[in-house]
Amino acid sequence: MHPDRPRTIACWFELASTYSYIAAHRAPALASRHGVHLQWRPFLLGPVFGAQGWRDSPFNLYPAKGAYMWRDMERLCHRLGLPFRRPSRFPRNCLLAARVACAHAEAPWCPDFVRAVYRANFADDLEVGERAVIERLLASVGQDAQPVLAHAETPEMKAKLRQHTEEAVALGIFGAPTFVVGRELFWGNDRLQDAIDWAIAR
Amino acid sequence: MHPDRPRTIACWFELASTYSYIAAHRAPALASRHGVHLQWRPFLLGPVFGAQGWRDSPFNLYPAKGAYMWRDMERLCHRLGLPFRRPSRFPRNCLLAARVACAHAEAPWCPDFVRAVYRANFADDLEVGERAVIERLLASVGQDAQPVLAHAETPEMKAKLRQHTEEAVALGIFGAPTFVVGRELFWGNDRLQDAIDWAIAR
Repeated sequence: MHPDRPRTIACWFELASTYSYIAAHRAPALASRHGVHLQWRPFLLGPVFGAQGWRDSPFNLYPAKGAYMWRDMERLCHRLGLPFRRPSRFPRNCLLAARVACAHAEAPWCPDFVRAVYRANFADDLEVGERAVIERLLASVGQDAQPVLAHAETPEMKAKLRQHTEEAVALGIFGAPTFVVGRELFWGNDRLQDAIDWAIAR
Repeated sequence: MHPDRPRTIACWFELASTYSYIAAHRAPALASRHGVHLQWRPFLLGPVFGAQGWRDSPFNLYPAKGAYMWRDMERLCHRLGLPFRRPSRFPRNCLLAARVACAHAEAPWCPDFVRAVYRANFADDLEVGERAVIERLLASVGQDAQPVLAHAETPEMKAKLRQHTEEAVALGIFGAPTFVVGRELFWGNDRLQDAIDWAIAR
């Protein structure tokens, strides 16, 4: 490791992504244990999928893959002790939640907000696309929803989320979560430990 | 575990599949260590992908996914000490090799033949679609190629491989390798240990 270079992992995540839910809950403790710094990078998978010709989640477009994913999520969450209920709608529109996460990425409450959105979607089956739900989730992490949302919806912050998504594509990202260490990509919750090992070994 | 039920994992694999190469090399030692029996089930991904509207490997159809996969293979093989060279053609036609593996699935030399095909394709960049290459690989595992191939190309054995592929689809398999324990599917080299854990816990 170069002592002047922090061991940093950029965590590219999509709030509607099932496996990102698991990774967002596992990453902080794992990273802390290994002395690795996490940078949270929200982006939107919709435009990334759209560029590949998909107008829906591949888990909906390819039913066998989708059926497998839901069962896999059940098993993984059960093993990790994470609450999970297959949501009645998938994927949910997470644009507003992503704008909040992007605009307030440096705020100390942001990781808690992100995990609250995942739990609402994948454990409590709440309509996280609705503003009222996001307001309640912000309140649950101690935030005053109105100023938080007002900042997230400024043109500058909307543009920032679009830039994140363009940057994700430029990095070669095609799914979420993706962990980036230097120029190395690690795709999927399954590669979190590999990303940490790579960051430590640099 | 039910004492009257053997701990068995059906390993559904495609000889042209990159991650199946890794799994085929890892599985025997892992299974043996845990007292689990492996059933090798060759099938063809082409018809499975075709049913989803794909006329090529998704790693070719989706370049970002493909670029990631090749780098991921390099890293994984390096860590496991498996030889790897990105083949100059992908995917290679593995129909004849799959017919051999299917017709002779119970032969004690079959797992060695399967691993030889993978190494030829993914470490030595050989045209495993060519009959002469398959003949040499059979010789390398101590077999007389002519009778082996003659049996593999009987109508009954050709039908057996088609039946395997139909059975894979019926099981909900959409990629390779897939490990099946009872009614549970575990997709990908990344899920091999999970499949073993599941087989042991039954």
